[in-house]
Amino acid sequence: MANLRDDALIQIGQKAKDAEISLRTMGSERKNRSLLQVAEGLIHHSETILSANQKDIDQAKENGMAQGMIDRLLLTSARIEAMAEGLRQIAGLEDPVGEILGMKQRPNGLLIGQKRVPLGVVGIIYESRPNVTADAFGLCFKTGNAVILKGGKEALYSNQAIVQTIQTALEQCGVTPFAVQLITATDRSVTQEFMKLNQYVDVLIPRGGAGLIQAVVNNSTIPVIETGTGNCHIYVDESADLDMAVDIINNAKTQRISVCNACESLVVHEAVESKLLTALKKKLDEHAVQLRGDEKARDVLPDITPATEEDWGTEYLDYILSIKTVSSIDEAIAHINRYNTGHSEAIITQNYANAQKFLDEIDAAAVYVNASTRFTDGFEFGFGAEIGISTQKLHARGPMGLLALTTTKYIIYGNGQIRP
Amino acid sequence: MANLRDDALIQIGQKAKDAEISLRTMGSERKNRSLLQVAEGLIHHSETILSANQKDIDQAKENGMAQGMIDRLLLTSARIEAMAEGLRQIAGLEDPVGEILGMKQRPNGLLIGQKRVPLGVVGIIYESRPNVTADAFGLCFKTGNAVILKGGKEALYSNQAIVQTIQTALEQCGVTPFAVQLITATDRSVTQEFMKLNQYVDVLIPRGGAGLIQAVVNNSTIPVIETGTGNCHIYVDESADLDMAVDIINNAKTQRISVCNACESLVVHEAVESKLLTALKKKLDEHAVQLRGDEKARDVLPDITPATEEDWGTEYLDYILSIKTVSSIDEAIAHINRYNTGHSEAIITQNYANAQKFLDEIDAAAVYVNASTRFTDGFEFGFGAEIGISTQKLHARGPMGLLALTTTKYIIYGNGQIRP
Repeated sequence: MANLRDDALIQIGQKAKDAEISLRTMGSERKNRSLLQVAEGLIHHSETILSANQKDIDQAKENGMAQGMIDRLLLTSARIEAMAEGLRQIAGLEDPVGEILGMKQRPNGLLIGQKRVPLGVVGIIYESRPNVTADAFGLCFKTGNAVILKGGKEALYSNQAIVQTIQTALEQCGVTPFAVQLITATDRSVTQEFMKLNQYVDVLIPRGGAGLIQAVVNNSTIPVIETGTGNCHIYVDESADLDMAVDIINNAKTQRISVCNACESLVVHEAVESKLLTALKKKLDEHAVQLRGDEKARDVLPDITPATEEDWGTEYLDYILSIKTVSSIDEAIAHINRYNTGHSEAIITQNYANAQKFLDEIDAAAVYVNASTRFTDGFEFGFGAEIGISTQKLHARGPMGLLALTTTKYIIYGNGQIRP
Repeated sequence: MANLRDDALIQIGQKAKDAEISLRTMGSERKNRSLLQVAEGLIHHSETILSANQKDIDQAKENGMAQGMIDRLLLTSARIEAMAEGLRQIAGLEDPVGEILGMKQRPNGLLIGQKRVPLGVVGIIYESRPNVTADAFGLCFKTGNAVILKGGKEALYSNQAIVQTIQTALEQCGVTPFAVQLITATDRSVTQEFMKLNQYVDVLIPRGGAGLIQAVVNNSTIPVIETGTGNCHIYVDESADLDMAVDIINNAKTQRISVCNACESLVVHEAVESKLLTALKKKLDEHAVQLRGDEKARDVLPDITPATEEDWGTEYLDYILSIKTVSSIDEAIAHINRYNTGHSEAIITQNYANAQKFLDEIDAAAVYVNASTRFTDGFEFGFGAEIGISTQKLHARGPMGLLALTTTKYIIYGNGQIRP
């Protein structure tokens, strides 16, 4: 049985490698036409996709899945239209593949430059939302990559229907259907083997919760792009405009609580703590935000919950905010560098030197002066698409657009040069 | 005991993290002055380093180490001078840290750019040559990174003496000595734990043979920059200038056989095979290169060894060359994409379309037209330094200079923006 499984995965890997070659040299026009055709296909086959999704929903209900999870799993005509619209938007983006960077002539006459090329075969491991299936295909296809998808067991019927629809549309365009493949085996051992398919897969991107991402980081021998959790801080400096601070903290905490760029912890200079917390509490009470403060914060707001060591390291993804008091910007920076997850950090200040110091010394993917951490997002940054937000330092850091799905190769034009 | 070991590693990790903060914001002038001081220190403490090296050499001889390996391990006054000169050269290179890339204003007024910053803490696992110790320190320090070194057991005394010398010189400059640390524990289990020190180490770079690199790729949970092996091909097209072809093949095969950018396999179009092989054999006979050919190659040169399937995938690092006959450029490209290791590949041709086709379709870090594969090298590419040659696609591909030891972070200047 183990061998059979291996064989199936290896076949998928081999087909992706074969597809990679034609995708690598496919022009933007043809890729864009195919994306539009796939969008049409999704609309055209809505009924098939919806009835496959119904099977997943029925099974989820039988298994007693929580309503919130079922909502994530559910497809509707509107959601299929949104998937198609997403593909149309990707078709409209500029294709990064083929750009030549920094071509220069060396003293020996060699002309050396870097050409932007697809990564090759991208593996994506993700959880419940079936819309990721179309989205991941679109981003990978636009950048000339073959993609192998491993979705969650709970969305298997939906994902199969979506992938089959995409493959059919690709074939109608004369494009290899193996540009996208779905691993349908559902046992964990297959996922484990997939994470070691270095011979066929160039990069693995996990999309989902912290548990999934950690499992991939720990088990994959394929290079991983880690899209991570966000324990984001806002530091209110001694010199801050406190009205601005309250607005920004309120926005970063409550505009959407379940996302990685939401603010989880307030760090506040003791000189402005009393004034800030009094005004802030009024605002956050509108959303019933629970505050958890250190001793000095509780001197100002005696009724709030005491913060423990554990709070400093927790990404709540909830209407909860921890409050840490500091007596200097250095203490604030040290605290944030110790507890943050390398995602998004902000300072609110009117002091020029402190703004620059914070930008210099904070170690995170995105560091803000006087703005909400909620802006860390591929669309807000102007990329027109987002694969995820990288919290690691290699290859891509911060919001990832199409560029993150490409690499470069050196191309060298010679006329007979040999090395002396 | 396991706990003790853990503790020692964690302390090293923690000290590196602490050092990272001051290195991140250290100006180029101070870094360059310190590098020059370290170079002086190495010269000044030559005697101490040489006598430590003697202990390693004595032990190696006792253990019956091969003469070639002992040569790699041996330090001399001249080799220490070369280490110092390497550091002086690194001091003279431009510092990539601090550059701001692509700063743009968004419609909402946010000013968003990417600042080039150090990776943080770099781990390097390497084998015998003690000069790597100074070299790796120099490259990491110049780019503002703290480095944790794990050298081979056989070079322990030498590496300790070199690291202590560096640390002393750094302290004299008022710089934290923990910018460089050496793991002195020699059991394998410590190396295993080191490869999972994600909390403290941002990237792991193995430098050494294929076995070492594979072990790190398979066991590390820290992101790895893979510097790999090179099974490099030269394809001689139907339209090639055959004199040029012979010169380039001879250079790529024999100029230095032990390196990853040496040519291991000749792929030749059948239309020119007879003429090429006859001329080539004459040239390669001067170096007693053993040829291993397929059937058609042996029709031309009946006395050469038959090539087996295994030959196509072998990096000889020796005076051996395999020969594969093809009847089209497509067949050549398919063969090379199947067996290459993603390092360096060359076409010899006078045909414009074939040159472009080869550049487009070959999947490798460096693709050449009419030049020797031996040019794939950080110095030859004009980087002034080289950490290694990456054969993976993430982060850095091909020869890696100082840039490969940096990452970016987004810096965002706002004036109160919140997300609608």
